Amino acid sequence: MTTIPSWARAERLARARKEQGERGVDALLLGPSADLAYLTGYHPPHLERLTLLVVPAAGDARLVVPALEAPLARDQLGELEIEVAAWPETADPVRLVVDALAAAGATGGRLGAGDQLWSTFLLRLQAALPAAGFVPASTVTRQLRMRKDPEELEALARVAAAIDGVVEGLDGLRWAGRSEQELARDIEEAIRDTHDKFCFAIVASGPNAASPHHGATGRVIQPGDPVVVDIGGRLGGYCSDTTRTLVVGEPPPGFGELYALLHAAQLAGCAAVRPGVPASAVDAACRDPITAAGHGELFLHRTGHGIGLEEHEDPYIVAGNDEPLEPGMAFSVEPGIYPRGHYGARIEDIVVCTDDGGRRLNKTSRDLRIVS
Amino acid sequence: MTTIPSWARAERLARARKEQGERGVDALLLGPSADLAYLTGYHPPHLERLTLLVVPAAGDARLVVPALEAPLARDQLGELEIEVAAWPETADPVRLVVDALAAAGATGGRLGAGDQLWSTFLLRLQAALPAAGFVPASTVTRQLRMRKDPEELEALARVAAAIDGVVEGLDGLRWAGRSEQELARDIEEAIRDTHDKFCFAIVASGPNAASPHHGATGRVIQPGDPVVVDIGGRLGGYCSDTTRTLVVGEPPPGFGELYALLHAAQLAGCAAVRPGVPASAVDAACRDPITAAGHGELFLHRTGHGIGLEEHEDPYIVAGNDEPLEPGMAFSVEPGIYPRGHYGARIEDIVVCTDDGGRRLNKTSRDLRIVS
Repeated sequence: MTTIPSWARAERLARARKEQGERGVDALLLGPSADLAYLTGYHPPHLERLTLLVVPAAGDARLVVPALEAPLARDQLGELEIEVAAWPETADPVRLVVDALAAAGATGGRLGAGDQLWSTFLLRLQAALPAAGFVPASTVTRQLRMRKDPEELEALARVAAAIDGVVEGLDGLRWAGRSEQELARDIEEAIRDTHDKFCFAIVASGPNAASPHHGATGRVIQPGDPVVVDIGGRLGGYCSDTTRTLVVGEPPPGFGELYALLHAAQLAGCAAVRPGVPASAVDAACRDPITAAGHGELFLHRTGHGIGLEEHEDPYIVAGNDEPLEPGMAFSVEPGIYPRGHYGARIEDIVVCTDDGGRRLNKTSRDLRIVS
Repeated sequence: MTTIPSWARAERLARARKEQGERGVDALLLGPSADLAYLTGYHPPHLERLTLLVVPAAGDARLVVPALEAPLARDQLGELEIEVAAWPETADPVRLVVDALAAAGATGGRLGAGDQLWSTFLLRLQAALPAAGFVPASTVTRQLRMRKDPEELEALARVAAAIDGVVEGLDGLRWAGRSEQELARDIEEAIRDTHDKFCFAIVASGPNAASPHHGATGRVIQPGDPVVVDIGGRLGGYCSDTTRTLVVGEPPPGFGELYALLHAAQLAGCAAVRPGVPASAVDAACRDPITAAGHGELFLHRTGHGIGLEEHEDPYIVAGNDEPLEPGMAFSVEPGIYPRGHYGARIEDIVVCTDDGGRRLNKTSRDLRIVS
């Protein structure tokens, strides 16, 4: 997983510090998270024992880590210039954090707490640092992570190809007469075979497909059922996420027209991607044709989410997010239409914003797939 | 998973409110977590979209939930009296939280934030509730969850029996000449076959066994290697966690004596368990014989951790924790001895404190296992 060379991680840390300077964040305080992995290559488990990287805008970085984890931490950090401060079982790790901030003159500063840092740790830090102010660390880190570098785009393309392979295998499965769970297990196995890690497999059939976040139940798939298949895994640290809609044999009345509308909307969303366009415009490009056809109420969710080390990250493709797209941003474009009680449909691709417009990383056909 | 009847969950919520009253916590604010699952039976995913249960000590409970998740939430809550406040994609969920607190007169109160709630959400709540004070929700919830009820003890016994079955199968595997990772995969499969979910499989051989949190590497296991196998999964929502130490053929010089010492220390720890005894006394009971034999420095970690819906939860069996044990508490007793550069050994059982003393849930032999 940690294939990023030390020099590249050092460069990321330097960029984070520069960004901190510009945004007035005196230090980052990062627990186990994608931010930490991005900056240092270290992937600690989430524990009740505090692990925290302190990165002052100016001053020495320190990783506060339970003594048990210290050997692995040193190993994963490699040549990166970060002091590893190991704390034994009965010590107070917050003290080690405060000391590192004091050395950098930042105990009364504006501190960026990792977005996913547990509240129990933030409350302890706040109590120990009464003069400090806290903001989410993503104030800084989103600026770095949103724009993928060429190696990251390569990793995203690789994991997209892996999930596309799983999609290509869907036609060969038997659908009618088997439960959503059985199909989900087949798909999970295919994801395990082609990724480092299985993440999720939504198999939502018939009326279940009208619930966008349906999982997979014991419902037995029937001839004529539309089935929404939304799947993803992780490879080399990066995530895949794609959705295709299938029909078992003959589609129900009206479904073909609805799907054609959705297909056109998804294409319009992908076509709207280019540098300078606000994220909200991609949402509107998907949503407008569906609304114009009178189905706006049935498109229940935002159009997409950024993707990278996390399944969901910045930028979000949603009304109100007027942040302009930039080359290197990677996100899903996934409109859906969900007539409650009947069926549902969704199409999802990961799209990268390039100088020349959107580049789709998922290459499988978006035509309605007929299975048996 | 959610096999807890509505009335039992309602009872837990009532107990939480009583505990809130006694501890001066005006409302609990719980995100996706074991606390939430314990009180309501609802198991939402961790999302960038806020899911938060508001439980005023006096007043109506409200679950603030992304609209997409609302159908599943209603389904999992069942007959529990909790208002589901669904928020659409472009709305501000924090507003819904503040409104629920205002209705209960608690916006300026002492609020218990879920220990694992993401900092990004806590910071938003703190900004929207400037008059409130925040404490960890575990101030309240640990009081409930630490003492397992008979159904929970039954679930822990069941998952312990499941992992014991996996341990019994270890003797039948081939060890010499295969990598730690290969063995870990075999064990993972056995855990998947007997649990709902695989959680972890540490296979630490030879010198790797000296690192308590070693995972499983490509190291090929050699004749004469001690191997620490620490494994766990989840069944019916509850966790298993047990460790046995094996040797491939003839143990290295001195290892047998070390293991005998460890075995005696672990027995002493289990024997020290009874109501009223401080948690730290169980730690001392394990540690003292190892220290007396001159190996105190090699017992690198605390003696144990509580277990239940989470792998690690209260009570922690560690020096300094003078909380008295009570009937229904369940925790690991897992001393280890780790001579760096050579080998390591650990023995771990889950033990329940009963009126009559400690009851071990793991029943497999703790004798040194010779494998080939």
